[in-house]
Amino acid sequence: MNYRMILYLLGLVLLIIGAFLLLPCIVAVIYAETQGWDILLAVGICAVLGVLMALCKPKQNKTMHARDGFVMVSLSWIVISLVGALPFYLSGSIPSYIDAVFETISGFTTTGASILTNVEAMPHCLLFWRSFTHWLGGMGVLVFMLAIVPMSGDSIFLLKAESPGPSVSKMVPKMRTTALILYGIYCVMTLLQLILYRLGVVFGWGEMPFFDSVCLTLGTAGTGGFATRADSLASYSMYEQALTTVFMILFGVNFSIYFFIICKKFKLVWQNSELKAYIAIILAAIVLLTVNLTLTGGYFDSVGDTVHHTAFTVGSVITTTGYGTVDFAQWPEFSKMILLLLMVIGACAGSTGGGMKVSRLLILFKFARSEVRHLVHPRAVEVMTMDKKRVSTDVIRGTAAYFIVYMMLMGLSILLIALDNFDTQTTVSSVFATFNNIGPGVSSVVGPFGSFAPFSDLSKIVMSVGMLFGRLEIFPMLLLLRPSTWRKHG
Amino acid sequence: MNYRMILYLLGLVLLIIGAFLLLPCIVAVIYAETQGWDILLAVGICAVLGVLMALCKPKQNKTMHARDGFVMVSLSWIVISLVGALPFYLSGSIPSYIDAVFETISGFTTTGASILTNVEAMPHCLLFWRSFTHWLGGMGVLVFMLAIVPMSGDSIFLLKAESPGPSVSKMVPKMRTTALILYGIYCVMTLLQLILYRLGVVFGWGEMPFFDSVCLTLGTAGTGGFATRADSLASYSMYEQALTTVFMILFGVNFSIYFFIICKKFKLVWQNSELKAYIAIILAAIVLLTVNLTLTGGYFDSVGDTVHHTAFTVGSVITTTGYGTVDFAQWPEFSKMILLLLMVIGACAGSTGGGMKVSRLLILFKFARSEVRHLVHPRAVEVMTMDKKRVSTDVIRGTAAYFIVYMMLMGLSILLIALDNFDTQTTVSSVFATFNNIGPGVSSVVGPFGSFAPFSDLSKIVMSVGMLFGRLEIFPMLLLLRPSTWRKHG
Repeated sequence: MNYRMILYLLGLVLLIIGAFLLLPCIVAVIYAETQGWDILLAVGICAVLGVLMALCKPKQNKTMHARDGFVMVSLSWIVISLVGALPFYLSGSIPSYIDAVFETISGFTTTGASILTNVEAMPHCLLFWRSFTHWLGGMGVLVFMLAIVPMSGDSIFLLKAESPGPSVSKMVPKMRTTALILYGIYCVMTLLQLILYRLGVVFGWGEMPFFDSVCLTLGTAGTGGFATRADSLASYSMYEQALTTVFMILFGVNFSIYFFIICKKFKLVWQNSELKAYIAIILAAIVLLTVNLTLTGGYFDSVGDTVHHTAFTVGSVITTTGYGTVDFAQWPEFSKMILLLLMVIGACAGSTGGGMKVSRLLILFKFARSEVRHLVHPRAVEVMTMDKKRVSTDVIRGTAAYFIVYMMLMGLSILLIALDNFDTQTTVSSVFATFNNIGPGVSSVVGPFGSFAPFSDLSKIVMSVGMLFGRLEIFPMLLLLRPSTWRKHG
Repeated sequence: MNYRMILYLLGLVLLIIGAFLLLPCIVAVIYAETQGWDILLAVGICAVLGVLMALCKPKQNKTMHARDGFVMVSLSWIVISLVGALPFYLSGSIPSYIDAVFETISGFTTTGASILTNVEAMPHCLLFWRSFTHWLGGMGVLVFMLAIVPMSGDSIFLLKAESPGPSVSKMVPKMRTTALILYGIYCVMTLLQLILYRLGVVFGWGEMPFFDSVCLTLGTAGTGGFATRADSLASYSMYEQALTTVFMILFGVNFSIYFFIICKKFKLVWQNSELKAYIAIILAAIVLLTVNLTLTGGYFDSVGDTVHHTAFTVGSVITTTGYGTVDFAQWPEFSKMILLLLMVIGACAGSTGGGMKVSRLLILFKFARSEVRHLVHPRAVEVMTMDKKRVSTDVIRGTAAYFIVYMMLMGLSILLIALDNFDTQTTVSSVFATFNNIGPGVSSVVGPFGSFAPFSDLSKIVMSVGMLFGRLEIFPMLLLLRPSTWRKHG
């Protein structure tokens, strides 16, 4: 393991976080909030630690192997969570450091599960930082670093470990350009959503305050889910809710699709099977929920209302954002199960969303089908394809293993959370909601208007680790737990 | 597809079931129960249909391909369930035919989930038939047929489709001898348990009536779970309960282990990794449950009592038997989650138990570990071994696909059962309990002292199909649903 190189890069990451922490300081100045000083202290800590670690820059051996890359990414995420929690903790807004780290991990991993019970009492600067962690974590801190720092060597492993999906596709041959394009698209779309929120106010379609629209935009872009009000998005106008629905779904799309659109490769967009499946699942879920809620009765006044709110909820849950316009924890069991299923499916690969990812699901389906065929024709050799390209055996094996480990870890987490002796719905859905980076579960305790405060510290730690596993897609984190990773020649 | 051959074999299966239906007729004679006539009518139906179908015996083309074998096994199980339900339905003891089929499938698949609300009101002959379906279904109807009917061709596919586990091992080169040995061991162990029950009565360690000991022995041997009393095994003596614990665990062991013991190949027994894992899981679960129940408090008077009942419950659940001495639906959430986990794990391959099977779990674990290693050393080639033998890529792929389809089907079932709008615990655990052929779930509705009667017909059908999928390990049943299976050259 190239420890010096890892230490140097971790230092850079700390400096980046320190720089970004200046943003909430500015917010504190605008709103004249004294918590700005605490954030400034956190900036100082990042700066000092960051400079010290960056001094370790190795002179000769700058090579990073696969293992170093994965370990580096996992450690970065742990480090940014630990220092990102400092503003909450130092200012006393979240008195327990474990709670503060939970909230920060929930932010960076774009989960949006909150231990706050009175979010409206938080100062603006901290609310902004909370939402900003979503935005930064959505596209990835390492991807950001790749975009600004010229790196030699195999930096593909960094992108691989931080970008969601079964296989990473470089848009252009150069790693740094790919990272720049990704962040470019990301910034443009974020700005667009903010502008459309503001236009709504201008035209009188809503009254969302500017601060709220900034925070909600950051949370939508990162598919995070932290809101600035206790009732999430329930009190905003229909226009603002519908706009959020559209943008949540857009941010759940693979960003290469937008790159194809920019390059005018519309055929590639049209043929993309993940995109088609993603849209089909969303539409099917909206129909199923609408029918279930209408037949059960008593939830909404009109079918139009029902579609509006089910569309929002489906968009929110499948993209793993986690905003809510209604308390879906009150919905019938079938609707809740659909939502739990959507949590597992998740958004598209290469988006800011979490969950299993639609493309993994497609690969698993095709794999299962080919195995059934294999049973009948044991001697036939089959080649699996997706979007007219061959899916390599490595990707298939990796995806199958991913699913297996994913299920095992979810099972283990459920077991540990069960020690708190909540009901099954709370136990299961809190794990589903954190491991897949959604945020709210489907029981009233952890629902969209609930809070994760009632859980024990052990459960909060388990869920925090689970959120990191979910965001980094398990394997990078798993490597940290493997003893041979830390041996010289493991 | 060789339709004539399949029809002929289905006829044989019907004749076998008809012959076995004479047993409850004898019970009816002993207890002078009029329902015997209804059973005799069912015998007649089996005989007529069986003879007619057996007349289709093909003259030339007797070859069975993989596909024919799997389809044949699936169809047999559907046919025996439909005719096995006749005694319940014709006698009016179970007025709804869907309920009667549910109960029969639950019997043959050794699930033990019952729609009866007053089991003690049932006549002896039907109670006996109910328990006897466990015994027959446990080892397999087709295996029985293989043991008595000399068959040409590739009859390995029949054994493969009906015997649980990731790969089937012929004990001896000849298929028929293997089937005979399996049933031989099975009969001896069943008799042994019955004798030990009777000895308990002789020595005054219990007062179990003879009829009960016969039924409970049949249910234990098949790892079924139908009892003759509403409180399952709660009212029997400690000796009788402990004896049941031991035999449940014994019937959950791979039967090749007993064959090794007969052949004095003790080294193979000792080295068997599935057996070791099975015992380790049982011990770990007993410890975890005992600690959890003791710390929560208020469940049992002494630690000895706690261990007695947790051992019984663990043995009952991991072997997928489903007997109960206590209402574990009242236990704390952590204990229930452990039980749900045991339901998924299941017994050993090649036993009469259901679930995923311990050996599949071992293969999945090793596969996942090798994939993590592959991530770090992408160019290294690894060979996976178990019990010092190489595990073929086919078995690994098949096991991974099994797990994937298993999870997808469980998810789909949960979704459909959720339409009944029970609480999450009831919904989830009823699917876990039926799909894995356990019987009782962990909520009070479907717990060991509960009943599946409250579910809708749709749910009962979904669960019935689920039980068949679980017993036949998914793929044979899945083939039935594949359109190309029914094409001439699919």
